[in-house]
Amino acid sequence: MSHLREMCSSHGLVRAHARKDQWVTQNFDLDWRGFSYGIQPSVNHFAAARSLDVAGIDIYHPTQSHLTGIEIAFGGDLARSIRHGQNYLVIETEAQGFPEWTPYPGQLRLQAFSHLANGANMLEYWHWGTTTNAAETYWRGLLSQDSKPNPTYLEAATIGKDLAGLGPQLVNLRKHNRIAIYVSNQALTAFDAFKFGWGSRTTYNDVLRPFYDALYRMNAEADFIDPTTTDLSPYKLILVPALYAAPDSEIARLNAFAEQGGHLLYAFKSGFSDENVKVRFTTQPGLIAKAAGVEYSQFTIPESVSLEGDPYHVGPADNTARWWMEFLTPTTGTTVATYHHPAWGKYAAITRNTYGKGEVTYLGFMPSDALTEKIVEEAVKRANLWGPQQSLHYPTIMRSGTLTNGHEVHYLFNYTASPAQVSYLLPSGKDLLTNNPIQQHITITLPAWGAAIIEETTP
Amino acid sequence: MSHLREMCSSHGLVRAHARKDQWVTQNFDLDWRGFSYGIQPSVNHFAAARSLDVAGIDIYHPTQSHLTGIEIAFGGDLARSIRHGQNYLVIETEAQGFPEWTPYPGQLRLQAFSHLANGANMLEYWHWGTTTNAAETYWRGLLSQDSKPNPTYLEAATIGKDLAGLGPQLVNLRKHNRIAIYVSNQALTAFDAFKFGWGSRTTYNDVLRPFYDALYRMNAEADFIDPTTTDLSPYKLILVPALYAAPDSEIARLNAFAEQGGHLLYAFKSGFSDENVKVRFTTQPGLIAKAAGVEYSQFTIPESVSLEGDPYHVGPADNTARWWMEFLTPTTGTTVATYHHPAWGKYAAITRNTYGKGEVTYLGFMPSDALTEKIVEEAVKRANLWGPQQSLHYPTIMRSGTLTNGHEVHYLFNYTASPAQVSYLLPSGKDLLTNNPIQQHITITLPAWGAAIIEETTP
Amino acid sequence: MSHLREMCSSHGLVRAHARKDQWVTQNFDLDWRGFSYGIQPSVNHFAAARSLDVAGIDIYHPTQSHLTGIEIAFGGDLARSIRHGQNYLVIETEAQGFPEWTPYPGQLRLQAFSHLANGANMLEYWHWGTTTNAAETYWRGLLSQDSKPNPTYLEAATIGKDLAGLGPQLVNLRKHNRIAIYVSNQALTAFDAFKFGWGSRTTYNDVLRPFYDALYRMNAEADFIDPTTTDLSPYKLILVPALYAAPDSEIARLNAFAEQGGHLLYAFKSGFSDENVKVRFTTQPGLIAKAAGVEYSQFTIPESVSLEGDPYHVGPADNTARWWMEFLTPTTGTTVATYHHPAWGKYAAITRNTYGKGEVTYLGFMPSDALTEKIVEEAVKRANLWGPQQSLHYPTIMRSGTLTNGHEVHYLFNYTASPAQVSYLLPSGKDLLTNNPIQQHITITLPAWGAAIIEETTP
Repeated sequence: MSHLREMCSSHGLVRAHARKDQWVTQNFDLDWRGFSYGIQPSVNHFAAARSLDVAGIDIYHPTQSHLTGIEIAFGGDLARSIRHGQNYLVIETEAQGFPEWTPYPGQLRLQAFSHLANGANMLEYWHWGTTTNAAETYWRGLLSQDSKPNPTYLEAATIGKDLAGLGPQLVNLRKHNRIAIYVSNQALTAFDAFKFGWGSRTTYNDVLRPFYDALYRMNAEADFIDPTTTDLSPYKLILVPALYAAPDSEIARLNAFAEQGGHLLYAFKSGFSDENVKVRFTTQPGLIAKAAGVEYSQFTIPESVSLEGDPYHVGPADNTARWWMEFLTPTTGTTVATYHHPAWGKYAAITRNTYGKGEVTYLGFMPSDALTEKIVEEAVKRANLWGPQQSLHYPTIMRSGTLTNGHEVHYLFNYTASPAQVSYLLPSGKDLLTNNPIQQHITITLPAWGAAIIEETTP
Repeated sequence: MSHLREMCSSHGLVRAHARKDQWVTQNFDLDWRGFSYGIQPSVNHFAAARSLDVAGIDIYHPTQSHLTGIEIAFGGDLARSIRHGQNYLVIETEAQGFPEWTPYPGQLRLQAFSHLANGANMLEYWHWGTTTNAAETYWRGLLSQDSKPNPTYLEAATIGKDLAGLGPQLVNLRKHNRIAIYVSNQALTAFDAFKFGWGSRTTYNDVLRPFYDALYRMNAEADFIDPTTTDLSPYKLILVPALYAAPDSEIARLNAFAEQGGHLLYAFKSGFSDENVKVRFTTQPGLIAKAAGVEYSQFTIPESVSLEGDPYHVGPADNTARWWMEFLTPTTGTTVATYHHPAWGKYAAITRNTYGKGEVTYLGFMPSDALTEKIVEEAVKRANLWGPQQSLHYPTIMRSGTLTNGHEVHYLFNYTASPAQVSYLLPSGKDLLTNNPIQQHITITLPAWGAAIIEETTP
Repeated sequence: MSHLREMCSSHGLVRAHARKDQWVTQNFDLDWRGFSYGIQPSVNHFAAARSLDVAGIDIYHPTQSHLTGIEIAFGGDLARSIRHGQNYLVIETEAQGFPEWTPYPGQLRLQAFSHLANGANMLEYWHWGTTTNAAETYWRGLLSQDSKPNPTYLEAATIGKDLAGLGPQLVNLRKHNRIAIYVSNQALTAFDAFKFGWGSRTTYNDVLRPFYDALYRMNAEADFIDPTTTDLSPYKLILVPALYAAPDSEIARLNAFAEQGGHLLYAFKSGFSDENVKVRFTTQPGLIAKAAGVEYSQFTIPESVSLEGDPYHVGPADNTARWWMEFLTPTTGTTVATYHHPAWGKYAAITRNTYGKGEVTYLGFMPSDALTEKIVEEAVKRANLWGPQQSLHYPTIMRSGTLTNGHEVHYLFNYTASPAQVSYLLPSGKDLLTNNPIQQHITITLPAWGAAIIEETTP
C-alpha cells in the first residue's frame, strides 16, 4: 500500500508538470517466473491503473516449441480489464529475447497479431538494439550488437509494413465478453501467506492460471474483474477461484449476481477468511454457503483421490484431485461429483445450487488441468455461452472483437509448427492480411505459426 | 548447556513460587522433520527431566495411509525413560493437525490407545478449537474455526467416554522391559558435526531410528537409556548405535554389562572419539575393541557393497550396506558376516565375541532397514528374549505392561486400512473395550485402524 | 587483481628475507567441486607463477570405481605449463582422503606414477598422520589416528622404495607437446558472469573440461597456454574453447598462428566480447570471422538439436548439441556439419577455412562428450599428430616424455579394476619397475590399476 501511495503521489507530481497534450502510462509487470506468469503480487494493478491515462504492460513468454499465446492473452486481457475495456499499450515484449527465446520463423508475426487480437494499440520491443554490456547483454532486441539486419529484425519489418497499412483499421478493438474471471490481490496476499501448508510453494497464481488457461484453450474470451468491479451486469458467467480473503460485502455482491440470473463458479478456499485474514467463525464456505447450498468443516491434501466414476470422462491419469480438497456436504445444493477414496468417498467434490434466477457451482478441490477444462466447459455451456468460436480449440486460437467501423473481426492463429486446416463457422468476410474473401463454412489453411485476420463483411 | 542451566535456574524460580500442591512439567519436543522424528538435538532430555515432577512430551506424526504408530511409541518410550519408568503426559498431539493429517475414521482412537499403551497418563490435543489467524491457522485442533462438532471431534468424544470408564483401571501402566536402546546427546552432537562426510545430511537420528523401528516392528518393547543410566541390571540386551563420542568410563560401564552376562550390540562409529570429540589414538573402536574382539583402522562409504552370501536371507535389494562401512578384522571375536565387494571382501562386516559371561556383537556398517531388522532379531533371540509377542509383527502391534491391579494388559493394534485376523498367544483375559472374553489361542478380528485392550484374568 | 598484487608484494617480502639457497613455491589449488575440477577462477595461475621458483599444485580426485587419472593429468599439465615446461611439485594430494576415497589396492601406486608421468618432481600426501579433531578429522593422511601401518600406508611404502631407486632416473621429465589447449582467466571471469543465461550454472570449466578430457582419453598430450603465451611456434594444433573476452590483439596472434601453418579449433562464444566484456559491434565471431571464414548474428539454447546425418557416427544418443548453438553462415569457409532441426537446419554447426598456410575449424555449439571427442580426434588427425600413442585409448593411458639421459620414456597405465592386455607399438625398451625387456609390438599385461614405465633402449 505504501508502494501504491507513493505511486499515486508521484503521479500527482507528474500531472503537475505535464503539458495538456501529454498523458501518463506505466509498464506494469506480471508475476515473474522467468517469464510473465500471473497477476502481480506486489502491486494491485486495478488500483494503480486508476491514476493512468492508458495502461501499459510488459509481456515476456517462452517461444520456440513452448509458444502457446497464453501469456499474451493473459497479460492483454488484464491490461485491458484494469482500465475497464480501454485499449492498452504493450510497452515491452521480447524480440530475440533470452538465448532460449530466439523465435522460430513466423513466431514474431504470430505474437504481434496475438497482441492486437487482445486489444493492444501499440507493440514495443525490448528493445531495438541489444546492449553490449552489463546485465541485459543477453536480453536481446530486434538487432544484435552488430546492428545489422537479421531474420528476427526482417520479420519485424513485415509486421511494421502490415500495420502501416492495417493499423488505422485494426486499432481500438472493442471486446464484449460475457465471461469474467474474478481476481483479488487481497486474496492473493492472504492465500500466499499460507499456500497449501508449511513448505508448500504453490501460490494463488498456480490456482488461477489453470482456470484462465482452460478458457483460453476453448477460445472463450474473458475479462478480469476484481473487488472494485461493482457493475457485474455485462457478465453471464463469473469464475471465482481461491477468493481466500474477502469481506462479506464482496461475497454478497457476487451472490447477488447469481440471484439476479448469473452463473457463478466458486472454487475451493473461497470465503474462508475475512478481509483481515481472520478465518470466519461461521460454517464454511462463509457467506458463499448460502448461495452455493453447501457446507464443510474439514479438508485435507488429497492423496490418490479421484472423482467417483470419472464423470467428466478424462481418463484415470487426469481424473485426479491435487493440492487441496474440502469435505463438502450439500444443503440446498445437489451433488455433481463425489470423491473416490476409501475414507472420503461420502463427501461431495462438486455441488450445484439454483439461487434466485441464477446458479452457483462450488468446486471443492483443485482438479488436474484436463479436468479443470471440462468443469469450466460445463460452466460455459450452462451459461449458454458455447458458440461457434468453441468449435475451435487450442492450438487453433480465435480472438474476436468489434472494429471502429462496427464490423466484427476474428483473429485466427495456428500455434503449432505444422500447417492447420481450420473450419470457419463465423459470418463471411475477408482476410485483411491477404485480401482473400472468406466464406462461412470454408476451410482455411494456416501455415505453421500462421495468422489470419478476418473482418466480417456485414456490420 | 547454557540452555540447560537456564532451564534449571528457571526451575528453581518456579519451585520458589509454587504451592505445595503444584507440580512442574514441561512439554518436551522431539527432533522435528515436519513431524516428531528422533531424540532432541538441542536439549538433553535426560538431564532436563531431572528438574521435573513429571515428564511431558509433544508427539506429532503423519496420519492417513502413513500412520504407523512408530512416533507415538518412540516419543512415549522416551518420555517414560527419561523419568526412569514414571508415567508421562502427552501435553501436545494432533487432532485434525496439518491439512495433510486429517485423520481417517478410527485413526484418532487408535492413536489415543497407542499413547496409553506406552505409558501415557494423559492425552491433550493441540488444541481444542483452531485459531482463526496467524501462523497456526492450519494447525487444527479438535474443532475447526466454526466450533461445531465434526467427525474428528465426535471420534474424540468416544475416546473420552471410554477413558471416563476405563481410565482408573488403565492409568499408571508399568513396563518391565529387558531391552534397552542406548542414546547419547553427547554422541549426537559430535556425530552431527561430521555426519558421513562433507555435504552429508544424514544424522545421528537417521542411524538411531532404523534400530528403534526394527524393535517396534517385531513388538519387542524397549527402554531408552543414556550415559547417566548407571544401573544396567534390568536389561539383558542393549543396542548401542553410533556412540560416536564417549569417555572410556562410559564404554567401560557398557563392556562390564556384557562381562556380567549381558548382550551388547554395538554399531559402527561407536567409541571412535572421546568426550571432547578427539579421535582416539588407540586402535579402533577404542575400548570397545577389548569387549568386541575386533579392530579396524580404515573405513569408507560403501558403493555396491553387500554381505557375502546374503546370510540374513533378505534378498539382493535389501542385502546392502549404506552410508558407512568399517574394515573390520576380528581379534578374539569371530566373523559373523563379511562384505561382498571386489576390494573389501577380506574384511568382516559383523563380528561376535564372548566376553566374560556375556556376548558382544559389533556391526561395522549401516544396513538397509530390512537387514537391520534381521540383525536386531538375531540379537533379541540370542538374548533369549524372543517371546509370544514376537509372533505378531507390524502392522499388527502389541504393547504390554502391568496394571495397578497387578494384572498384565496387552494392547493390540491394527495399523492398516483393512480388518486383521490376529492369533492371540498370551494368557486368557478380557477385552476392556468390548468386555468380550479372550481365550488364549483364539483369533481376534480387529477392524481397520482398530484396537483391543486385553487384561489377563490371572494376575 | 588485488589478490594478485598482494601475492606479488608478499613475494617481494619473502625474497627479501630468504637465504640464497632458499626458493619459493606455492601450492596452487584448482576449481573445487568436492575435488579438483578445472582452472582456478579466483587466481590467474599463469600470472601468479611468475613470482615463484617452482610451481606447486594440490590435486584431489575421486578414487575407487571413479578413478580415471584425468584430474592428475589436468592439474599436472597445468602446473607444468604455467612455468613453461618446468617440472613441478605435487604439494598436496590425497592418501586415504575423504571416507569415500579410501583407495582400492593398487590405486595409490597408479596415482603416484601418473603424477610422475605428467612431469611431477615431488609427491607429498596431505598428510602423514590424520588430525584427531576439528574440520579435517576425515581428510585422512597415510596413517589413521592410531598411527599404525595400514594398507594405504604400506602401499605408499612400496612407492617410496621404488622412487628411492628410480627417482634420479625419472626426475626432470621433459615434454615436447605439439598440441596446446588455450585457457584464459579473463575469458573465464567474463563467461561465468553470464554463463548460458539467467539461472544457468554451467561454467567456463564445464566447457573446457570435455575438450581436455577428449585429448586425455585419446592419449594426445597437451600443454596449457594462455594470453601471455607469445611463442606459439612449438605447436601444430591449438584448441580454443569459449574465449569469451579477449582483445583483438590476442585473437590476431591466434589467427597468425594459423596463417603461418597451424591448425586452430575455435569453439563457440569465442571472440564475442572484448577485454572489457563489451560485446563487439562487428559481425560475430569478431576478428575470428576473418580466419574462420564464418559469421553469425543469432544463437539460441539447443532443444532437440543434432547434427544432420550424424556425420561423426556417434549414434542418436550422442549426436546432440547442448547448452549453446550459434547460427553459423560460412563466408570463405566450408560447412563441415549442419544442424538437424525444423527451424535451424539451414545453419552450419561446424565450418572449416584454409587460412594462409594453416586451417581454422569453428565449432558453433557444445557437443556431447562423445561428439566432442570425435571432433577433437578429427582436429588431431588433420594436424598430422595422430601417432602410435593414439592406438591406445582410455582406460589404457600412455603418457610420454624424455628422461635426462635423453631416452624416451612411456608410462603405461591401466585405469580399470580388471587386468588389461596392451599392444606396445613404440620402440623397444625396458620396464623400469620390473626390469623386463619390452619389445616393440609385444602385448603387455597390466594388472588391475597397474602401471609400467618403459624406457626406450635407444636415445
